[in-house]
Amino acid sequence: MSEPKQKRSRDRVQSILDAALRCFRAEGFRGASISKICAEAGISPGHLYHYFDSKEAIVEAIVASDRAAIQSTLAALAAEPDPIEALMKIILLPDASEGFKLDGVLSLEIYAESTRNPKVAAIVAGFNTEARAALVQLITGLQRDGRIPRKADAQSLASVLIAMTEGLMMREALDPAHKPKAVAPLVRRMLLSVLSMAEK
Amino acid sequence: MSEPKQKRSRDRVQSILDAALRCFRAEGFRGASISKICAEAGISPGHLYHYFDSKEAIVEAIVASDRAAIQSTLAALAAEPDPIEALMKIILLPDASEGFKLDGVLSLEIYAESTRNPKVAAIVAGFNTEARAALVQLITGLQRDGRIPRKADAQSLASVLIAMTEGLMMREALDPAHKPKAVAPLVRRMLLSVLSMAEK
Repeated sequence: MSEPKQKRSRDRVQSILDAALRCFRAEGFRGASISKICAEAGISPGHLYHYFDSKEAIVEAIVASDRAAIQSTLAALAAEPDPIEALMKIILLPDASEGFKLDGVLSLEIYAESTRNPKVAAIVAGFNTEARAALVQLITGLQRDGRIPRKADAQSLASVLIAMTEGLMMREALDPAHKPKAVAPLVRRMLLSVLSMAEK
Repeated sequence: MSEPKQKRSRDRVQSILDAALRCFRAEGFRGASISKICAEAGISPGHLYHYFDSKEAIVEAIVASDRAAIQSTLAALAAEPDPIEALMKIILLPDASEGFKLDGVLSLEIYAESTRNPKVAAIVAGFNTEARAALVQLITGLQRDGRIPRKADAQSLASVLIAMTEGLMMREALDPAHKPKAVAPLVRRMLLSVLSMAEK
């Protein structure tokens, strides 16, 4: 394919993914039909099927994009002068992290669908495995470099850090009484405690 | 209504709620039609509409049941000799708490629906408000009795405790690599740190 053709193709794929996300947000995965996604993207079903053979394939592309975003976010974090402060920001306001397609509301939708759709379950499982592995790699790297104590098991640490991030993301999405700024000092304290670090 | 008639009516309502939960689990809120719920409960639509005028009304009854379960669980917790240890158990394994209708998978479904259905959003908001208030009452009671330090603001504490509980519930529902027993020591450490308590 020629260079401009490749770019047109990439732009077309992006516009389909963005249209699908708007439809998933408005009507849920099940409610968002392929024909609605086509109408939202302004293309024909034949054209959409040229790129994606199902809604699950669209979800796979969206999640693949967020997998890449997690990899690069965690890689950047390892190079930060204060990786704990950088981690705090991601835990507290994951939606504000750049480059992610799924926020709390859309994550809820994909997770709910994964509990009864084996194809989406496989996509979520792949995401979980890779996010966990990237986090374990970050933690063991920071432990190896002596930037955090070696005390805690990296797999368990990854579990609680993901739980903390997603739990706060759900509060943010669902609970108007949740105030990220007000809870920040407590989240910092929790984070330091699981990392076996003293408070500054 | 005579006593046996009241009991028959209560039993009928319970069997409708249980049938609805099985349908929501299998097909999601949107996929579970009233006629499927009737077939699962073994009753006619006319009979179901005698008790509930919509799927949202069924969700409201399910959530009301869990609201009552939260109230009684937290009230029992305040009377425990070691309330922190009792809180730990709820945070780590919320699904194992007795008397709750919604586990991680069903919570995901209701939460996802709440992001695009105003009636379900109102039900979830009511639940959030009451669960938060019950937790704040528990925390301020424990602080007043000198069983936990008065240092942290009860609203912020409630936010992070709910986030921690729901985040771990989602890991439990979605991630086979998540091991509740392995993370228990880290969760205990996080809990003690937000409560400003020293580790034993």
